[in-house]
Amino acid sequence: MREIGVGMVGYSFMGRAHSNAYRQVSFFYPELPVKPVLKAICGRTKEAVDAAASDMGWEQAVYDFDELLERDDIGLIDINTPNNMHVPMAIKAAQAGKHVICEKPLGMTVAETEEALAAVREAGVVHMLCHNYRRAPAIWLAKEMIEAGMLGEIYHWRGHYLQDWLMDPTAPLFWRCQKEIAGSGALGDLMAHSADLALWLVGDIDSVCGSLNTFVKQRPTLTSTDGGLGGGAGTEMADVTVDDAATALVKFKCGAMGVFEVTRFAAGHKNYNFFEINGSRGSIRFNLERLNELEYFDAEDDGKTAGFKTILASDTIHPFQGLSDGGPRFWPAGHNIGYEHTFINTFADLFKGIAEGKSPNPNFEDGVKIQKVLAAVEKSSEQATWVTV
Amino acid sequence: MREIGVGMVGYSFMGRAHSNAYRQVSFFYPELPVKPVLKAICGRTKEAVDAAASDMGWEQAVYDFDELLERDDIGLIDINTPNNMHVPMAIKAAQAGKHVICEKPLGMTVAETEEALAAVREAGVVHMLCHNYRRAPAIWLAKEMIEAGMLGEIYHWRGHYLQDWLMDPTAPLFWRCQKEIAGSGALGDLMAHSADLALWLVGDIDSVCGSLNTFVKQRPTLTSTDGGLGGGAGTEMADVTVDDAATALVKFKCGAMGVFEVTRFAAGHKNYNFFEINGSRGSIRFNLERLNELEYFDAEDDGKTAGFKTILASDTIHPFQGLSDGGPRFWPAGHNIGYEHTFINTFADLFKGIAEGKSPNPNFEDGVKIQKVLAAVEKSSEQATWVTV
Amino acid sequence: MREIGVGMVGYSFMGRAHSNAYRQVSFFYPELPVKPVLKAICGRTKEAVDAAASDMGWEQAVYDFDELLERDDIGLIDINTPNNMHVPMAIKAAQAGKHVICEKPLGMTVAETEEALAAVREAGVVHMLCHNYRRAPAIWLAKEMIEAGMLGEIYHWRGHYLQDWLMDPTAPLFWRCQKEIAGSGALGDLMAHSADLALWLVGDIDSVCGSLNTFVKQRPTLTSTDGGLGGGAGTEMADVTVDDAATALVKFKCGAMGVFEVTRFAAGHKNYNFFEINGSRGSIRFNLERLNELEYFDAEDDGKTAGFKTILASDTIHPFQGLSDGGPRFWPAGHNIGYEHTFINTFADLFKGIAEGKSPNPNFEDGVKIQKVLAAVEKSSEQATWVTV
Amino acid sequence: MREIGVGMVGYSFMGRAHSNAYRQVSFFYPELPVKPVLKAICGRTKEAVDAAASDMGWEQAVYDFDELLERDDIGLIDINTPNNMHVPMAIKAAQAGKHVICEKPLGMTVAETEEALAAVREAGVVHMLCHNYRRAPAIWLAKEMIEAGMLGEIYHWRGHYLQDWLMDPTAPLFWRCQKEIAGSGALGDLMAHSADLALWLVGDIDSVCGSLNTFVKQRPTLTSTDGGLGGGAGTEMADVTVDDAATALVKFKCGAMGVFEVTRFAAGHKNYNFFEINGSRGSIRFNLERLNELEYFDAEDDGKTAGFKTILASDTIHPFQGLSDGGPRFWPAGHNIGYEHTFINTFADLFKGIAEGKSPNPNFEDGVKIQKVLAAVEKSSEQATWVTV
Repeated sequence: MREIGVGMVGYSFMGRAHSNAYRQVSFFYPELPVKPVLKAICGRTKEAVDAAASDMGWEQAVYDFDELLERDDIGLIDINTPNNMHVPMAIKAAQAGKHVICEKPLGMTVAETEEALAAVREAGVVHMLCHNYRRAPAIWLAKEMIEAGMLGEIYHWRGHYLQDWLMDPTAPLFWRCQKEIAGSGALGDLMAHSADLALWLVGDIDSVCGSLNTFVKQRPTLTSTDGGLGGGAGTEMADVTVDDAATALVKFKCGAMGVFEVTRFAAGHKNYNFFEINGSRGSIRFNLERLNELEYFDAEDDGKTAGFKTILASDTIHPFQGLSDGGPRFWPAGHNIGYEHTFINTFADLFKGIAEGKSPNPNFEDGVKIQKVLAAVEKSSEQATWVTV
Repeated sequence: MREIGVGMVGYSFMGRAHSNAYRQVSFFYPELPVKPVLKAICGRTKEAVDAAASDMGWEQAVYDFDELLERDDIGLIDINTPNNMHVPMAIKAAQAGKHVICEKPLGMTVAETEEALAAVREAGVVHMLCHNYRRAPAIWLAKEMIEAGMLGEIYHWRGHYLQDWLMDPTAPLFWRCQKEIAGSGALGDLMAHSADLALWLVGDIDSVCGSLNTFVKQRPTLTSTDGGLGGGAGTEMADVTVDDAATALVKFKCGAMGVFEVTRFAAGHKNYNFFEINGSRGSIRFNLERLNELEYFDAEDDGKTAGFKTILASDTIHPFQGLSDGGPRFWPAGHNIGYEHTFINTFADLFKGIAEGKSPNPNFEDGVKIQKVLAAVEKSSEQATWVTV
Repeated sequence: MREIGVGMVGYSFMGRAHSNAYRQVSFFYPELPVKPVLKAICGRTKEAVDAAASDMGWEQAVYDFDELLERDDIGLIDINTPNNMHVPMAIKAAQAGKHVICEKPLGMTVAETEEALAAVREAGVVHMLCHNYRRAPAIWLAKEMIEAGMLGEIYHWRGHYLQDWLMDPTAPLFWRCQKEIAGSGALGDLMAHSADLALWLVGDIDSVCGSLNTFVKQRPTLTSTDGGLGGGAGTEMADVTVDDAATALVKFKCGAMGVFEVTRFAAGHKNYNFFEINGSRGSIRFNLERLNELEYFDAEDDGKTAGFKTILASDTIHPFQGLSDGGPRFWPAGHNIGYEHTFINTFADLFKGIAEGKSPNPNFEDGVKIQKVLAAVEKSSEQATWVTV
Repeated sequence: MREIGVGMVGYSFMGRAHSNAYRQVSFFYPELPVKPVLKAICGRTKEAVDAAASDMGWEQAVYDFDELLERDDIGLIDINTPNNMHVPMAIKAAQAGKHVICEKPLGMTVAETEEALAAVREAGVVHMLCHNYRRAPAIWLAKEMIEAGMLGEIYHWRGHYLQDWLMDPTAPLFWRCQKEIAGSGALGDLMAHSADLALWLVGDIDSVCGSLNTFVKQRPTLTSTDGGLGGGAGTEMADVTVDDAATALVKFKCGAMGVFEVTRFAAGHKNYNFFEINGSRGSIRFNLERLNELEYFDAEDDGKTAGFKTILASDTIHPFQGLSDGGPRFWPAGHNIGYEHTFINTFADLFKGIAEGKSPNPNFEDGVKIQKVLAAVEKSSEQATWVTV
């Protein structure tokens, strides 16, 4: 067993989720061959970074990203910044010989993500993209069931990611509403997740037809510069330059039809990352707001007693849930895990990957693929036509 | 194919549900060997009976029960009166050589129901008790699954029947609140249904411990004498002499434990007749507000993908749902049936029984058994001790 | 109160549902000013029509559509044939001065439906299109809530209609798989319903981008000519000329975004006609497999206790459910109605319309609108581009 | 801010859940005035305790409980042993002047729990009983809603705690099946939780009528002595001396009726701690397998749109969920928490209590009350009669 120093940049929502996962991964994964040490957290605003370092258990706060790269005791760089910084930082980290984990979306453009992929490949470092939902046990179970043929030939993908946190028209124009920083709105934030799952569970996408829409065209500018929603709304108005919602029809290479819908304007939905897949042998459904559950219909079941069943993927036989001694990794069946555990499972596989010198899925290759889909949706929306991915 | 004349007494809620079923049974059951003709409806209030006859499609209105018995063109007597009239009328009908179907509960006391059973036996007529829920396809499916061993040895019965229509303390004291007419409150109205299902699905009950309670002790008297809630509340108050709610623990002869709970004071529940049965091989759940569905957990399912499944019991392979030519009796799968179809299925079996000279389940034998359970619950509540059934 | 004679053509699934509704509408709607008399049922196969007339309660069987038109005792023509006959028969009926109710979809092409509309207008007869789901009480309640402003400005429409009855590749090529008879597959069968609801609940559609797909390209030909699935599969194969599934993105004129998805290949779904609408003041959801329920999220609710609520639209205050005397039209709250009652409600409004000389919604005007949407989806799929409706 | 040293005894399921909570409480509760330091973990089997100390992050392993008491750097004793050790250890800890948190049930008998209460009172130490479910945000919200009058006068409590982990008759006779160590079976394990919630949410219980049952009367003895289920089954059989399931009717002092049912033999239920409360102003429901959700029916809602709503108690305005700066304590709305967070919230209040010198709820006073209910249920089952608490 050895340790690896982590240097993390970004300290808001994702920084906090990652910090927690570093703290917890060795507790729940005692078998890890490589364990993280929370060496340094990096950001620009000294006061805030200092507080974050203290609150989240980092040994040190630094204010210059390059400083992380220069340190020998840091072997892994974790990037949680706004989207426009992902690729530049990832490339720098790779060039400095550091392993890299990056929040999604990988970048702003396909070209950019390809550069990032080239960089990590050339450097030979381990790279991972933090699409943490793959490692919700119920979703990983879905993957195993699909691979075991339990859905048969796939006909339909239906993926919605519905939220409602931006419906208030007086909410200010923070970075997620600005194209130059975020790249896009619901598209890169939510459809990135949904596309990742579709590509993984169903397969490659051939072509897309998308539609982006901004319901609230202008918002008050922020009064402070910390970038978050908490900054407060000023009296001036400025244009929202990203989408509030995005929809897309897609054709998968395998012949399946797909529908995507993501939005920040679906009243009553907080984090409704839902998908359903229909195949010749069965159907499967998932909803992130009940993340321990997976629904399955087995078309080969006796018709008289067939029906969708609700699998509570919380037992030791379910993915990630069992220790090697047969005991529960987290808690006994029905003593459910939460959102944060998807990060813990993701990081466990990252550290196994680092031990073996292999980049776990999803990595920058997947990041390029996802970006191609998102870019095609955006282009399709502008041109009002189908676009080949 | 032959016809049988029906004479029905009582014309409010149940009279209407029965009238509808007589109208519809030949439409949905074209194979019936005996078909009903709606000969005469009987009640005391001429105006109301005349209107009912016209609205519900009866050939004639009569105002004296004995008149029904004297007619040769009436072969079946259907009793939908308040509970205190059930047994006297059933006995008279049997003695007149008429087949009898009676609304539940069969009677006011165990002794009374035994007299009714003796009378129909002696007369050799077909008799049936209208516990229509047995013939919800999902419940009949439950019975078939239990008989096929799909629950194994039964450990638990959990039956709730929750309603909220009497919560308003200003609702007047109509017949269902008066012991001398109704016999009991939620006990005979709701626990009768739940006990019927428990006895049928799990088996005989050895002993019970019950508790009856009246939350609203006094109610305004009715201003009119038609007996219904619509009569309007007067200014005088009188004692409610029946229970608003009843609970019971029971021990089944097979060794299973049971819990019953019925109430008219469960805000938000309209007709929540719920039961769950847990056995060594699986569990089953039902809720009348979603009457086309049955939930089943198969304990022999592969643990990794095991879970409660929701069976939509609406396909031609489900009980009552298929015609002999393989087509749907009612509507194609997923085009669901409603409350009234449980009566139609019940009456279809009644007419098959009449053709064969056999009394279908549940009949007066079951009525005696159910009454013994209800009486034991009531006695137990008075004596604050367990009572053997 | 007066009577109107009905002449109906077509006697399979829809013919049966309509026959039942004619039988029942006066029972549940005693206040109707015009009541139907089941005069004559029409079809080509004598034996089958004779049996249908007898089973479903029609006075007479006829084998020539024109015969219905010539009779003075028939005032209403009801068309339940395969889709290619709808418009020709509707026009003939109108020209004969008969009121017309027609099953959906109204026709095969936009031009055709416009001719039908012109004909009924010119004849001045009452016309109605049988989109029965509008009159599920829960859906009508949704309409009332939207009109009362309870959703506010609408952002999203999401409509799926999922079935699985055609997944078996050995199911034969009956009329619903043949373009020259059915016009289209899931598009005209299922998206017609979904589009009707979207147009009614959200408003006019500006443009669409659609995709049609046929998963099973060839099927065995039928061995008999009765047209139904029961005809049996032969050994020869022929091309399926309609879609198995259809998806579409749409832009509503009000600015809302819409997604449609309909399919006969969604394993586990029998009749899952689902929609959700998200607006600035709330969201609403419906699923036909639980047709008595409507879900609503009120965005103005106190956030601490806000959530989607499940409204059981079965009480006398809900649409269609109450009689004028305050009693239940069907059954007391929670004693739920089924699929067939949506036809009964539809026909009640038809007969009120006939009494008043007004065509109730939806009528042939709506039929043209729906056809325009479906045609645009089909054209869009062929041209792989957005199409203005 | 100051630190307090913790000495914990017991290192299996509960020991692990507590260890995790100590690790995490300062991360999620940065405002805590007193923060825990994981000083020493105690157990009898050196190897296992050493491993636990290492895996769970304790500074030291000790093998003698008294050693914990002697240390000045330990201010809080945490007891996670089998039930027969709870009270003796709690008394010793109090006498040593240590604050105490104890797993439920507090003891084996009422007398014993009263001794424990007397001891902590005399010592003046802070004491708490670890009924962690109270601090699931959804349950705490239920309490707040009840206190705000949102249920009105309470009529019904319905509490089930259903599990299925002991159904296999070959599972060995580990400590939870032995009365001399566990005190009881499902009664003390599961009904303790349910009774705690009932007493807190509804109020004091006047009398009970209970029934205990053991479905599997004998089990193989354990081959090892570590006490856990993992010890392996031997070939000898021995009597199970505790209950597999327990049911009870209760009468609350406020007049409400209650039903309890707990079991380890409900196939398909992993951790189904369900309760429903019906009152004059509304109803409330909870199910631990969906611990972020609370259902509420508001009887004063407009009847036309009334229904049970599903509150996702995950927003910053919900109990425990918000930081003082308005941000989320855990994660944004819909990014749900899990089982382990109920312990974290519990421990946060414990440390606040220690800072203030007050024993938070539930504490040993509640432990005595709960024990009185459980003892009454057991006595009632033996005597087959109602027992006053």
